[in-house]
Amino acid sequence: MNVMESEFIDWLRARLTPHDQVPLGPGDDAAVLRITQRRDVVVTTDLLTDGVDFLLEQCAPQRVGRKAIAVNLSDLAAMAARPIAVFVSVALPRPGAAQLSRDLLEGMLDICDRYHVALAGGDTNTWSGGLVISVTAIGETTPRGPLRRDGARPGDLILSTGSFGGSILGKHFDFTPRVSESLWLHDRYQLHAGIDVSDGLSLDAARMAAESRCGAALALCDIPIDAAAYELARQQPTGKSPLEHALTDGEDFELLLCVPPQEAQRLLADQPLEVPITCIGRMVAQQGLWQSDQGGNLRPLKPEGFQHGAL
Amino acid sequence: MNVMESEFIDWLRARLTPHDQVPLGPGDDAAVLRITQRRDVVVTTDLLTDGVDFLLEQCAPQRVGRKAIAVNLSDLAAMAARPIAVFVSVALPRPGAAQLSRDLLEGMLDICDRYHVALAGGDTNTWSGGLVISVTAIGETTPRGPLRRDGARPGDLILSTGSFGGSILGKHFDFTPRVSESLWLHDRYQLHAGIDVSDGLSLDAARMAAESRCGAALALCDIPIDAAAYELARQQPTGKSPLEHALTDGEDFELLLCVPPQEAQRLLADQPLEVPITCIGRMVAQQGLWQSDQGGNLRPLKPEGFQHGAL
Repeated sequence: MNVMESEFIDWLRARLTPHDQVPLGPGDDAAVLRITQRRDVVVTTDLLTDGVDFLLEQCAPQRVGRKAIAVNLSDLAAMAARPIAVFVSVALPRPGAAQLSRDLLEGMLDICDRYHVALAGGDTNTWSGGLVISVTAIGETTPRGPLRRDGARPGDLILSTGSFGGSILGKHFDFTPRVSESLWLHDRYQLHAGIDVSDGLSLDAARMAAESRCGAALALCDIPIDAAAYELARQQPTGKSPLEHALTDGEDFELLLCVPPQEAQRLLADQPLEVPITCIGRMVAQQGLWQSDQGGNLRPLKPEGFQHGAL
Repeated sequence: MNVMESEFIDWLRARLTPHDQVPLGPGDDAAVLRITQRRDVVVTTDLLTDGVDFLLEQCAPQRVGRKAIAVNLSDLAAMAARPIAVFVSVALPRPGAAQLSRDLLEGMLDICDRYHVALAGGDTNTWSGGLVISVTAIGETTPRGPLRRDGARPGDLILSTGSFGGSILGKHFDFTPRVSESLWLHDRYQLHAGIDVSDGLSLDAARMAAESRCGAALALCDIPIDAAAYELARQQPTGKSPLEHALTDGEDFELLLCVPPQEAQRLLADQPLEVPITCIGRMVAQQGLWQSDQGGNLRPLKPEGFQHGAL
């Protein structure tokens, strides 16, 4: 936080909500966070660029700011970690930088307040390039520990929150990071593994399977397809089907959870969340991504989605 | 870390040194860090852009990567925090992104190993713009707690490590983050406040004074001027004097420490570090930045330096 102008720091400090786990916030060389005794620290970071994650020309900076925080909260949700603080670094295009930074922060502070997360530090820079936003979110584990993506076992059912596809029509900005949902489920049910769908349902399911050294078999007819996926398919009649949108669009920021079968049946019957939970497949011993038909036969399915860092 | 290509993750994982405080590193939605019992977490973040913090055309990416880590370690040093892990997000220009990311990481991993710091996560993106690197460094406090910049009191002597000015000739890449120095001094001496000089000796001294609600009086003739400052003044005979370079250049990444007078005298006599420690002034009750002459008379001094985020 050491390179922010003092006037900006003053403005920011006046806007911040105090947080009992942040004894020292913006303004020093670093912030100090207090972790609950015997908990581990969970850290995630996501960087957003103009032209890839948003089009600054076409949307309000407040929504961009909200998204930059929300994608990181979604990652903490995927770990079943309780968020504490975020750190925000920006590279701002020089013309209009002052107003842009304040508009971005409006959206950031709003969602931070809703999730009781402190904006505890950051670094504001101006340059000749486009807008880049880097957010690091820090949380702590609950007594049940982190929910990793490598703990799935063959036989687990794959459950999802919400619905998939067509996020480009708005959900990629306005989605709900499943923080409270994840904490609730992790506390009350035995979950083997979890991931959030950032890059595409099929791609992220394949990643969870690969990390767990088993396979994922999706029951395509059970996948909850978002109304936006139908709308997008209608707008682009020669393009993807609604199901293809659901499988590959990404930025749904819903949870995929691997749950032992009996526990999964209990969870599905309980439907303990406001958002519906659906069984969309099962983990299998044979590595890779599969589609399973009604009879349970497997055919290969290609993992597709958005690969930000494709190198 | 969820948007990195799996091949890149595999390459990175193979390069990483295991760290006993990082039970879960890159590859999941977030990393998990283990903090020593009853310590607080210290977090800092710094973002570097091409054209401002480095000129990619003119320097090896390995040096850029090293700098991106080192500036963050310097911030942890300024807090007297023990570094644990760094998180690295990059926006890479698309042409040559794969090679560039590996070259940057070479420099990053080298300095991480030297400081026993884990590279525990990150986010790799490509885009149409220039290179942006965002690093978040996480450390923990020692039993003496964090060294803040707001604890200075009138009468404290201002001590500095090393020398100042002319960093653009090379030190801004190759400086030594004063991590072990800071931990050593904080453990053995009573320090009231500390800051690292990132934006300019005069500017950062003024910031420490402002946060501590007192003033800083610099004894200009006692300021250790780096040989590079003389060299730079020689190269630009119509520009700044060596002293002006020392006061305003920035990116020296030396420590400024406010120490009660008797303790400061003991520290200066001990000279316990490999790098020299010099008394460059004292804190005074009257707020602002001052220059003091041999007789102790104060005249105003303008804080100058590099304001990255000038909004």
